[in-house]
Amino acid sequence: LNKSAEGVRVSMQDARIVDTEVIVAAPKRFVRERVEMPDGYATDWYYVDTPPSALVVPVTADGNLVMITQYRHNLKRHVLEFPAGVVEDGEGLEDAALRELLEETGYRRAKGCCLRPLGAFYSLPSETNKYTHAFIAESVEQAGPAQGDAVIERYFDMEVVEISLADALASVGGDICGMEAVAAISLARPLVAQWNRRPEGG
Amino acid sequence: LNKSAEGVRVSMQDARIVDTEVIVAAPKRFVRERVEMPDGYATDWYYVDTPPSALVVPVTADGNLVMITQYRHNLKRHVLEFPAGVVEDGEGLEDAALRELLEETGYRRAKGCCLRPLGAFYSLPSETNKYTHAFIAESVEQAGPAQGDAVIERYFDMEVVEISLADALASVGGDICGMEAVAAISLARPLVAQWNRRPEGG
Repeated sequence: LNKSAEGVRVSMQDARIVDTEVIVAAPKRFVRERVEMPDGYATDWYYVDTPPSALVVPVTADGNLVMITQYRHNLKRHVLEFPAGVVEDGEGLEDAALRELLEETGYRRAKGCCLRPLGAFYSLPSETNKYTHAFIAESVEQAGPAQGDAVIERYFDMEVVEISLADALASVGGDICGMEAVAAISLARPLVAQWNRRPEGG
Repeated sequence: LNKSAEGVRVSMQDARIVDTEVIVAAPKRFVRERVEMPDGYATDWYYVDTPPSALVVPVTADGNLVMITQYRHNLKRHVLEFPAGVVEDGEGLEDAALRELLEETGYRRAKGCCLRPLGAFYSLPSETNKYTHAFIAESVEQAGPAQGDAVIERYFDMEVVEISLADALASVGGDICGMEAVAAISLARPLVAQWNRRPEGG
């Protein structure tokens, strides 16, 4: 399957990008790459070139998850998601996660509690190169109202929701219907369950 | 946050699409929509308009998962994923899942075994409207070699891998680094674990 008629290995790994066209620069960077394979076959490859994102699973001292309902225009429905957003130029990944948490929910970490990495994961690699760094934040607390980080978010009908792990798991396939949210819950689940088993004040 | 200065609710749910431009029609349909909010604010909304996909978690009679390693040009690396692909026009969701299974792995369901839905989930709703119908296929068996369903797949360096549930879980964050794969494993996990507990021949 991966050999040319002459028996040469023809993996895209060894392809050359001979031309790049930026079709749309902003707010989404949509590009066409002219890709030439090792056997000479050339094709146009289109994708959305996205900056990395940070996503955070915020857990309250009571063991509840802090999530956001919002209206997604591309889906024409409200969905339940975790705070997430683009990492700004020069910004650290943890700083981005905490900024998105504060902006989108109004919550922040309580003093002395740590942010732990849950890993980094891509989404939809046939259409984009989106790479999301996932974190879990222990013992978050409400510091004020959500702020929103862009004009457009004013229209997203966002609402902050505290939800138990059990209720979140029961909502998978219902209001929780994003691959990212389902993946994040499964990554966070062992830690949240462990925290919920701790004795009070422990 | 969701009120205009006059106290009118300004959710994007009530927005009007006043114009649609197809910037690229194929192989990825990239569109711009001119969206007018209820308060009169208008903005350009860009996204990849994608057909629905079907994804299948194939499980062998031995309880192993059938996965695919492939080179992803957008990520510049090999990754471990489940068979998945676009649902063709007029094709049923289950038919699409089984077709992708056969094309990408050469596996098919053994006689009498069923395909069960795991739910439908979107990916990356800020950039696309991709909606993937996930299934689990019980007792799949190898029917022949993988075929590939497009010229371009010849270059994807695809290889079929049988992997235990335990090894797959241990690979999350390593070779299994896609939100879709992590979500699918978490959705399939209870069923696979249950099947693995059955007595032999049961």
